[in-house]
Amino acid sequence: MLTKLSSATQEVIIGDEGPTVLIGERINPTGKKKMAAALLEGDMEVVRREAIAQVEAGADMLDVNVGVAGLDQAVMLPQAVQMVMEAVDVPLCLDSNNPAALAAGLKVYKGKALINSVTGEERSLGAILPLVKEYGTAVIALTMDDEGIPTDVEKRVAIARKIIERAASMGIPAEDVIVDCLTMTAATDHLAPGTTLEAIRRVKAELGVNLTVGASNVSFGLPDREVLNSVFLTLVIGAGVNCPIVDVAKVRPAVLAADLLLGRDEYSARYIRGFRQRQKALEEAPQQAGAPG
Amino acid sequence: MLTKLSSATQEVIIGDEGPTVLIGERINPTGKKKMAAALLEGDMEVVRREAIAQVEAGADMLDVNVGVAGLDQAVMLPQAVQMVMEAVDVPLCLDSNNPAALAAGLKVYKGKALINSVTGEERSLGAILPLVKEYGTAVIALTMDDEGIPTDVEKRVAIARKIIERAASMGIPAEDVIVDCLTMTAATDHLAPGTTLEAIRRVKAELGVNLTVGASNVSFGLPDREVLNSVFLTLVIGAGVNCPIVDVAKVRPAVLAADLLLGRDEYSARYIRGFRQRQKALEEAPQQAGAPG
Repeated sequence: MLTKLSSATQEVIIGDEGPTVLIGERINPTGKKKMAAALLEGDMEVVRREAIAQVEAGADMLDVNVGVAGLDQAVMLPQAVQMVMEAVDVPLCLDSNNPAALAAGLKVYKGKALINSVTGEERSLGAILPLVKEYGTAVIALTMDDEGIPTDVEKRVAIARKIIERAASMGIPAEDVIVDCLTMTAATDHLAPGTTLEAIRRVKAELGVNLTVGASNVSFGLPDREVLNSVFLTLVIGAGVNCPIVDVAKVRPAVLAADLLLGRDEYSARYIRGFRQRQKALEEAPQQAGAPG
Repeated sequence: MLTKLSSATQEVIIGDEGPTVLIGERINPTGKKKMAAALLEGDMEVVRREAIAQVEAGADMLDVNVGVAGLDQAVMLPQAVQMVMEAVDVPLCLDSNNPAALAAGLKVYKGKALINSVTGEERSLGAILPLVKEYGTAVIALTMDDEGIPTDVEKRVAIARKIIERAASMGIPAEDVIVDCLTMTAATDHLAPGTTLEAIRRVKAELGVNLTVGASNVSFGLPDREVLNSVFLTLVIGAGVNCPIVDVAKVRPAVLAADLLLGRDEYSARYIRGFRQRQKALEEAPQQAGAPG
């Protein structure tokens, strides 16, 4: 199953045969005080910088989230989308829990966007799927509903199925629904990541759709988070995720390795190109070598 | 299915519910000129040092291979086994293609050893399985036969089945056969690692036995080998390998992360302990911090 997304001039195709598509997560003020403060002051330059840096690091798409308490999302999101479109030419993922903001963002967007996100809640289905239909976007479907995130695999698969079926009933094809089986931290429940992995395998096997996941929640509250995030990302890609939302600069080497090892990189071409790019970047910034964190 | 191995006083249990058992690979002169030269001069001190270093780094077992052209394995292997048993108290994996050397090593070994390895070749089955039976060991079964390493999954599974059945006919239980689905480099065939992964999943699902693999061949001829080896190790553990043969110091952080994420580490206890051990080691060797590779 192929999901096609586009910017003004570029198309990105998500599917099991192709390489893993990396959606850059860094345009998001959650937990980032500096970015939140800049946005509150109306300073969007930080959004431009993060957009350019992530695409240089190898992002195939960018998530755009400018949710800060006290700001009108319906004004901010289209501004941010506009700014990112001027800075880079990759498809965007419009990320907001505010349907009016998503609509305003989609109005200015050029291409086929991804909406982040719809859930199994009736209110969400009723507000988001009509936008998907009207603007011809794709959408990320979170496997949660009015009762929260189910702790068992069966219910998560059932929610994914429900969202796909509801979308189909409105004429939205399954390839435009990208399922996120949701990750909770292993710190409070050591079985939580395994539940996510099993849900991913089940959704892939039974529903056949493309899958995303954010790979950093899993390590919340634990030390050495980068190792956990990177290993979890490898496991979810092995289980069927093909367009994760990630900190691209940190995880790209591991993802290129996973793609090669999963048979998605003929002649190791992307892997070797990625390695050379990193070498070149290191040579061009020798003063950075060995600098702490 | 549980495989139990032991040293003079310690038992190690390999199974899907428990943590990944790490078999240290570094007592092996293949590709190590210094170690080969030391062994040729009869200097076994290097073996002792590698044994201690690997166990300190977290090895649960050690592979012992002293194969150097020009040395009598039947003399060297028991000497090396004796030296390692004096230095550390973990179960050993006796690694030789020479049945007489394995027999000599098993004669001096105290505990239940692992033999590395038997293949599907009649000559190998006929020479190795009687040793497994006589000394009550477990054995690593390589999925290759007289025709070499099959490129297709089906044949590798068939060889694993054949070895397990042959062992059973001699009274050797399936839990004492640990299958190695063999890894070839991705450099010459980008589909090779995927074949290994699929063979691992099939052997686990259909034969239910424990699985090992050496994770470093996969990166032969490619740059940035450590990233590839570490990602491959994560993928094979996710697919069912539970006692890989590895460079323990390099891969242990990723393996502890994988065990946690796969639900094998309640309260994140081993993961956090491993993190603290690494921190302590760094604090005790501050002059090493930031030193190049």
